[in-house]
Amino acid sequence: MMKPRNQILAIFAALALSMPLTVQAENQKKSDTWLPSLVTETPQEGFELAIKLSRMGVKSTQPDKETLFREREKYAQKGEALIHASEVIAVHFQTVAAANNYWK
Amino acid sequence: MMKPRNQILAIFAALALSMPLTVQAENQKKSDTWLPSLVTETPQEGFELAIKLSRMGVKSTQPDKETLFREREKYAQKGEALIHASEVIAVHFQTVAAANNYWK
Amino acid sequence: MMKPRNQILAIFAALALSMPLTVQAENQKKSDTWLPSLVTETPQEGFELAIKLSRMGVKSTQPDKETLFREREKYAQKGEALIHASEVIAVHFQTVAAANNYWK
Amino acid sequence: MMKPRNQILAIFAALALSMPLTVQAENQKKSDTWLPSLVTETPQEGFELAIKLSRMGVKSTQPDKETLFREREKYAQKGEALIHASEVIAVHFQTVAAANNYWK
Amino acid sequence: MMKPRNQILAIFAALALSMPLTVQAENQKKSDTWLPSLVTETPQEGFELAIKLSRMGVKSTQPDKETLFREREKYAQKGEALIHASEVIAVHFQTVAAANNYWK
Amino acid sequence: MMKPRNQILAIFAALALSMPLTVQAENQKKSDTWLPSLVTETPQEGFELAIKLSRMGVKSTQPDKETLFREREKYAQKGEALIHASEVIAVHFQTVAAANNYWK
Repeated sequence: MMKPRNQILAIFAALALSMPLTVQAENQKKSDTWLPSLVTETPQEGFELAIKLSRMGVKSTQPDKETLFREREKYAQKGEALIHASEVIAVHFQTVAAANNYWK
Repeated sequence: MMKPRNQILAIFAALALSMPLTVQAENQKKSDTWLPSLVTETPQEGFELAIKLSRMGVKSTQPDKETLFREREKYAQKGEALIHASEVIAVHFQTVAAANNYWK
Repeated sequence: MMKPRNQILAIFAALALSMPLTVQAENQKKSDTWLPSLVTETPQEGFELAIKLSRMGVKSTQPDKETLFREREKYAQKGEALIHASEVIAVHFQTVAAANNYWK
Repeated sequence: MMKPRNQILAIFAALALSMPLTVQAENQKKSDTWLPSLVTETPQEGFELAIKLSRMGVKSTQPDKETLFREREKYAQKGEALIHASEVIAVHFQTVAAANNYWK
Repeated sequence: MMKPRNQILAIFAALALSMPLTVQAENQKKSDTWLPSLVTETPQEGFELAIKLSRMGVKSTQPDKETLFREREKYAQKGEALIHASEVIAVHFQTVAAANNYWK
Repeated sequence: MMKPRNQILAIFAALALSMPLTVQAENQKKSDTWLPSLVTETPQEGFELAIKLSRMGVKSTQPDKETLFREREKYAQKGEALIHASEVIAVHFQTVAAANNYWK
């Protein structure tokens, strides 16, 4: 969801652009949607979706971007944390692959 | 389940509001239900349900809110704990996705 | 299974209560049954069964109740152990959910 | 497989008991079989099979009984190792439950 | 995707080789594709694909090759990290095996 | 794949044995095949295949036998590493069991 201040800015932007507010609201909603579907065209795109799901899982526990970047910087330097990150991707890739009937 | 003291308070509240006790009991039961279904409208709502399930798992081992918040504050600062939290969400997301036939 | 001493006590109890021994044996067997079925009425009851299965797994490695309680007290204070406990519940919840055809 | 010395002893035993060697060989083979089937009568027996599978996994890496007992004694005192042991049981229980069509 | 500088070099190379740019673009796209399919001819090739998927998961978190090689060098010396790496392969192998209907 | 030196030795061996080189090549290929199928006759053989898959996963990250043996020696003395090794076997056993339709 947008923060209140962003909503106010969005209203001003809508006024400035002479857009009806309902359209603006529609746009807001769309921008909040980061997972419209588990279906992808290729296995590789499915793998990228699995990476995205893993990161959104991390973000749900730590939404603060600065902390996230600092921690990612640190664990990306540690082999064992990298293996663990790869494991989470593997679990999500199972889900995405099943959703796409393994792209068969 | 409600604690005895809460039940007594609920009875007083029901009396004060002139509500029949059976309705009150019904309300109590509803407020205890946090997982009525695994079905969600969209994949993204399914992901949010997976986050909820992960947290309810943690809460089942440590029901004390103060301890929970203190610990969440701590592990949200550690990259490796964040990856682990993301893994639990991934496992639950598998279940929720299967329950929704992958929103196909 | 009951320990020999408990079996002797059960026989005395059966005699004292004038119950036929076969009935008593039946009762013994029932009290040992903690997992009669994976089927639950609601998803939430399924989640509670998953919690139970996780704990029975821990208990199978450490049957001594005193040690169990001491350890649970300790790990319930550590964020990372709580996440791990939540993960085990997630794995069992997959099984229970599949057994119930996801309560669809 | 039996160690050579045990095989010799088995041959002597077979001679002593006047059993044909083929029957003896059959008995040997049977005593080596610890996993004849994944099918169990009840969910609870399935859970016990999952515990057995977890232990056989540990034993396959460390066959020495003395080391195994010493290590089990140690990790049974640590909450986090107990959770991990419970997780392995959970993974095996998924397999056993599926093999039994969830005892439905 | 190719970096801009590489794209310019590719255009020069295409000109030099008198190749039509569309063909060149096609080649670029192909070289970016590392996961065209989950289908393999044999179980063993499927296992190798699982290893590749595990590594691509690590690479997605740490794209810098030098850091990757340094870390791999380190964790390849630690038994516990090796077990963890083997676990990620196991999770991916589940996906690949299902995609190939277990090569039955 | 065979190392160049081994290939030379193989050619000499083929010459010495008057075998046609194509047959020799066929033999080489066969000796490289360690996973011809996921199908096993019994659940127990399936469990042994799961152990093999776990070890091949470790070997894929650390192919040096001396390091492997040294590390196995070390982690086989640690309860928690033994549990982790057992977990990897459990994940592979899921795959093998599914491939064999649970030996039903």
